[in-house]
Amino acid sequence: MTLHHPIARLGDLTRDEVADAAAHSVLVLPIGAVEQHGPHLPLRTDTLLAETVATAAVEACSGTVPAVLAPVMPYGNSEHHLFAGAASLRPATLAAVLGDLVRSLHTTGFQRFFLVNGHGGNDETVRLVSKSIVTELPVAVGTVNYWQAGSSAEPVPDGADVPGHAGWWETSLVLAVRPELVRTENAPSEPLGARGLYSYEPVPGLNVQMRGEWARSGGTTDPAAAADPGAGRRMLNERTAGVAEALTRFHELTREQQTR
Amino acid sequence: MTLHHPIARLGDLTRDEVADAAAHSVLVLPIGAVEQHGPHLPLRTDTLLAETVATAAVEACSGTVPAVLAPVMPYGNSEHHLFAGAASLRPATLAAVLGDLVRSLHTTGFQRFFLVNGHGGNDETVRLVSKSIVTELPVAVGTVNYWQAGSSAEPVPDGADVPGHAGWWETSLVLAVRPELVRTENAPSEPLGARGLYSYEPVPGLNVQMRGEWARSGGTTDPAAAADPGAGRRMLNERTAGVAEALTRFHELTREQQTR
Amino acid sequence: MTLHHPIARLGDLTRDEVADAAAHSVLVLPIGAVEQHGPHLPLRTDTLLAETVATAAVEACSGTVPAVLAPVMPYGNSEHHLFAGAASLRPATLAAVLGDLVRSLHTTGFQRFFLVNGHGGNDETVRLVSKSIVTELPVAVGTVNYWQAGSSAEPVPDGADVPGHAGWWETSLVLAVRPELVRTENAPSEPLGARGLYSYEPVPGLNVQMRGEWARSGGTTDPAAAADPGAGRRMLNERTAGVAEALTRFHELTREQQTR
Amino acid sequence: MTLHHPIARLGDLTRDEVADAAAHSVLVLPIGAVEQHGPHLPLRTDTLLAETVATAAVEACSGTVPAVLAPVMPYGNSEHHLFAGAASLRPATLAAVLGDLVRSLHTTGFQRFFLVNGHGGNDETVRLVSKSIVTELPVAVGTVNYWQAGSSAEPVPDGADVPGHAGWWETSLVLAVRPELVRTENAPSEPLGARGLYSYEPVPGLNVQMRGEWARSGGTTDPAAAADPGAGRRMLNERTAGVAEALTRFHELTREQQTR
Amino acid sequence: MTLHHPIARLGDLTRDEVADAAAHSVLVLPIGAVEQHGPHLPLRTDTLLAETVATAAVEACSGTVPAVLAPVMPYGNSEHHLFAGAASLRPATLAAVLGDLVRSLHTTGFQRFFLVNGHGGNDETVRLVSKSIVTELPVAVGTVNYWQAGSSAEPVPDGADVPGHAGWWETSLVLAVRPELVRTENAPSEPLGARGLYSYEPVPGLNVQMRGEWARSGGTTDPAAAADPGAGRRMLNERTAGVAEALTRFHELTREQQTR
Amino acid sequence: MTLHHPIARLGDLTRDEVADAAAHSVLVLPIGAVEQHGPHLPLRTDTLLAETVATAAVEACSGTVPAVLAPVMPYGNSEHHLFAGAASLRPATLAAVLGDLVRSLHTTGFQRFFLVNGHGGNDETVRLVSKSIVTELPVAVGTVNYWQAGSSAEPVPDGADVPGHAGWWETSLVLAVRPELVRTENAPSEPLGARGLYSYEPVPGLNVQMRGEWARSGGTTDPAAAADPGAGRRMLNERTAGVAEALTRFHELTREQQTR
Repeated sequence: MTLHHPIARLGDLTRDEVADAAAHSVLVLPIGAVEQHGPHLPLRTDTLLAETVATAAVEACSGTVPAVLAPVMPYGNSEHHLFAGAASLRPATLAAVLGDLVRSLHTTGFQRFFLVNGHGGNDETVRLVSKSIVTELPVAVGTVNYWQAGSSAEPVPDGADVPGHAGWWETSLVLAVRPELVRTENAPSEPLGARGLYSYEPVPGLNVQMRGEWARSGGTTDPAAAADPGAGRRMLNERTAGVAEALTRFHELTREQQTR
Repeated sequence: MTLHHPIARLGDLTRDEVADAAAHSVLVLPIGAVEQHGPHLPLRTDTLLAETVATAAVEACSGTVPAVLAPVMPYGNSEHHLFAGAASLRPATLAAVLGDLVRSLHTTGFQRFFLVNGHGGNDETVRLVSKSIVTELPVAVGTVNYWQAGSSAEPVPDGADVPGHAGWWETSLVLAVRPELVRTENAPSEPLGARGLYSYEPVPGLNVQMRGEWARSGGTTDPAAAADPGAGRRMLNERTAGVAEALTRFHELTREQQTR
Repeated sequence: MTLHHPIARLGDLTRDEVADAAAHSVLVLPIGAVEQHGPHLPLRTDTLLAETVATAAVEACSGTVPAVLAPVMPYGNSEHHLFAGAASLRPATLAAVLGDLVRSLHTTGFQRFFLVNGHGGNDETVRLVSKSIVTELPVAVGTVNYWQAGSSAEPVPDGADVPGHAGWWETSLVLAVRPELVRTENAPSEPLGARGLYSYEPVPGLNVQMRGEWARSGGTTDPAAAADPGAGRRMLNERTAGVAEALTRFHELTREQQTR
Repeated sequence: MTLHHPIARLGDLTRDEVADAAAHSVLVLPIGAVEQHGPHLPLRTDTLLAETVATAAVEACSGTVPAVLAPVMPYGNSEHHLFAGAASLRPATLAAVLGDLVRSLHTTGFQRFFLVNGHGGNDETVRLVSKSIVTELPVAVGTVNYWQAGSSAEPVPDGADVPGHAGWWETSLVLAVRPELVRTENAPSEPLGARGLYSYEPVPGLNVQMRGEWARSGGTTDPAAAADPGAGRRMLNERTAGVAEALTRFHELTREQQTR
Repeated sequence: MTLHHPIARLGDLTRDEVADAAAHSVLVLPIGAVEQHGPHLPLRTDTLLAETVATAAVEACSGTVPAVLAPVMPYGNSEHHLFAGAASLRPATLAAVLGDLVRSLHTTGFQRFFLVNGHGGNDETVRLVSKSIVTELPVAVGTVNYWQAGSSAEPVPDGADVPGHAGWWETSLVLAVRPELVRTENAPSEPLGARGLYSYEPVPGLNVQMRGEWARSGGTTDPAAAADPGAGRRMLNERTAGVAEALTRFHELTREQQTR
Repeated sequence: MTLHHPIARLGDLTRDEVADAAAHSVLVLPIGAVEQHGPHLPLRTDTLLAETVATAAVEACSGTVPAVLAPVMPYGNSEHHLFAGAASLRPATLAAVLGDLVRSLHTTGFQRFFLVNGHGGNDETVRLVSKSIVTELPVAVGTVNYWQAGSSAEPVPDGADVPGHAGWWETSLVLAVRPELVRTENAPSEPLGARGLYSYEPVPGLNVQMRGEWARSGGTTDPAAAADPGAGRRMLNERTAGVAEALTRFHELTREQQTR
């Protein structure tokens, strides 16, 4: 395969290049969301960060992992953010999208898929599709929420909720990659509402969802005024390293065992 | 509400008793699975344990949490166990079941639901339904995988994978509650196959699903021969205490905030 | 197959025992409902009776019919009872559940299925699934509403509607098997409302469904105060004999003809 | 309402005539099937007979029941006849069609629906839709399988299975209404195969479906050579009278009770 | 194949005649709609015209194209006409109907399908199904909106919108084939409302749909008072000739290339 | 609304900016596809061109039409291209995506939507969704296939099929915007196969779909070797002008009439 670019992008390849690459390559698919991120962050925050990390991780592995990067799926499941604005797919729709993409790309020749998710609301669907599709097709699917990959040495300020939503952490990351998209003057210095039940385990193992919690919490988990581009850059690098390590490990684990 | 039994069971109540209880009670629904559990455990292991823990937790809270225990949903998503036998619902079917139950019980008057899950294959669906249903109905939904509730002081032997599948942990638990259902003579003393990629995070944040892994691993995660009913009893008590604590906390958190 | 129990229960078997039994056994699945049964009967009346009859019928045939009894599906289609309380699956959901169970158990090795239904609201769905699934899979499916099996010599009091809903008949049956679940003091001695159009054919061949009829009729078809545990026991025995005869005949009819 | 025709046909009315008629009229919908009917009957036998009986019944009631006759739905669920030829809707598709028709006609103003079914394969779906739709909309739905309406004095010859499929009964009826469509020279004088398990209750209350039974039985239930147009005419009159009586009774029962 | 009729009608054939004809014949399926057509035309206008043109086209080709004419599907997607009355299938239901019919008739032996559509609201669904089904099955599907077939020399009066909806064109056609169904005294001589955005491309390539436009336009596109049966007859002949030409061409194009 | 960018991009706005803009703005959504485009064009050709034209059109109207540009939906319905490679959504999935996006953005406050489609395989679905959604929600939806907007003065060389697929036209356009993505050395100078039945109307009004036609035609409609960036630039400008005119006209037509 002769690629015209340092990393292979599915959208930029021709059909013959794809045919050459598919059987031995890992198809990397970033998945984002378009939804309210407080008064200061852009709606596409999750899409931006998923795509940024996935792209950087593919680049970081370019010498060792044959990967093909698919266009980011910009829309995810954000029904819970409709109180304040989102372009949202219902979970069944998102599941159909991911299933169809894997199915058609498998027909195209790919056998290994690596999904980089950028949004908590997509988490269950991404994992469910990965479990289901392998009962239907002879494929391997790796999934990672970029914010959970790797480990971090960056100190977390008091009151910050990592990763949280539209708080110190995400704001720092967007400041690092697209500072002009952050309305720093609007970044909250205080919590916008009560702590959302959706955002933590009140006791170990317990998750609570309740109607209206996102609105009650003001749609952010923690103040963002202290966000810092330097910390953002370092944390982004840490997560990118984690995703790159995950991609590498996925490649190694599935290269031999992969069946047809 | 005058109940005929120490704990209120939805199936045993009359319609008027339900009408009296619904608005202020938490509806507790255990969810299991019927699937292969190695050569020594019965297919309904997950259903048995989910029901056992949920019932004991409701009892433990009977003085403090007004709860109504629904009949265990005995079937779950076990598509990945069909290589060796299961009665399985596809994820979309299980999601429809859970959604319909919450929806109809909400029409009946309940506003708060607490789902006690007994099977890893149900995890994403249970959580997805809990997130989705609160965007549709004015309800609160707590979810807990019983094996993740609370904490444990019980020492774990070398080679055991907790909770795992059909290994030391689950076998000990079934030995504690229904020893006659365990074919101890068949309990494996060695791993039945390679370690399944489904059973661990190869690096932090990475989940891997691959066609055929359950078969390659022999369908169990770790040897069961060292399983012990005493340890099982203690661990079951720990988990029950954890679920009871989660139920209590859920009740406290949603009692006031619950909206109509 | 060496079973640990007098009747083989799917949930109690190991995967190897299931593998041994599946090809030549009939899988028996009881199906119930959780719904209002007047002011005196418990919500799980239909589940209780379907499970009781199915279990007794399997026992009665244990020497002649190789059967494996699956866990009762406790929830059915009770949308029409939501006026007064139910945990209900919509018809499409129930159809998906039954289809998935047959499909996965067929993958597991079973070729013959016998569905014992305990609830009128499930009737069409149960029969529809049985007709459909044989156009998809090489299986045989027998279905029986337990109240229609066999014949009865028990005299029916004036005003009783057999089987009816929550009236003399069902109340007698529950009194026979779980008397402590009947609030006899609440058992109506008069009709609770107008005769429901849903409950009879006004002229031969005509069925009428009308919005609100279940509420107008008070949710029961006939008075229950005269219910009698002795009659209940005898009628239950008659129905059990009928279901056992049906199971035996199903086994004989499908044993030879069954194709793969 | 001034109609241009002796009976009101939905398809022939204008929107204003429909608007005038809808609130107080019964919408009558015949439902058929296009499927193999042995070597001698046309594929549209069920559609023809459903439409014939429904039309005659509406005419018979024209002085007493305000009815509007909708175009016959010519296609039904015939998946079990695909071994020898059919134009078939899957059950879920047929259910969607019937639900959509009732829903849209209710928006148009109708509140009462009377479904005249001509095909056994549609029976469960027709009844299921009638039960479901009244939990969704304030409507009344009457359903009748035309062959079960009324009573019959016509003697049945030995070996005939009434109504059966493509046997003495249906052949007599088609001979009565469209004799030129019957290939009498091909009408079987002997059974074409084994008696189909689908065609009878082996013991009371038992229904059996088995893969391949329709093919094994040759696709007809009983010989047709003795079919007789005179008997067909008399039996058709009997069924028409039964359907007319059902329609009249439905009108009386739902006229007053109908709610909005 | 010996047919009893000059043109082969699927509904009139026996299973053996269908079996003989299927492999080499084109299955012709007309599709209509039942919906408001102004104050003067009957609801089944589209069904009537699609069936009339399809039948005449099959007759016109009877010497050259082996065709089998299926019963018209009388109901289509008319959700946009519910403001004034329709019996409508939602698009997904109509797609399921068409897909099921092609699928079952392909199982029956047909490989080539020709859909004659009579209603604008069905257009996208008909074409979508034709595109989709060939990715699933080895079939060829031709589709034609009868009003777009062939060319016309008939002069169009000022203010007429061809084909429009319930205006000069459709009224002329119904006058030609079933004049007794037209309430000529009600035929509008002036537009009934504003020009509907749905009815034209405001600029090349732009289609606009807006809530309420059909009501605002009065449900017709142009006045019908000048409708003329002679013009209707000529235009119907032109369209029939166009559909016959399309059927002939479809037969020629797919006869050789058709694969199994 | 104070925007940070010359054109308002949904993804770049904050929730408050969206809230300010939604009610009076047109939401512009480009829709593409990722599929084989011959041996010389990249898979994302349609996504690239839809996004390019939509963006340029929004810019061109920036003084007159308040528009908000959503992230391009990169994946479309390409099932017919799977013979040679695609990342494809099935039509029902694509319809769900578009319906969900309009629905959630309507909840967010938008009332007017303008869909710019870049792929023929999406055409029916885009139009169907636009027709359906206005029967559900009080919105206006404009749709345009960018290649059909406006008019063109550019001469078309012999043998070119405009717009075609991966031929002279599309290749010229990609050469104009992203020349480095075109493998000009692979651009076919001769047709790669027989003319595809999918690509033209054999007679007026006839569309033909046949299994395997895309493969037989080699997946392109016409030679691309003569493609020219200058012509591409001019044609792109013409189409952009057409889409801008369509957007302007849509804004004018729906501004006043828009209902809530």
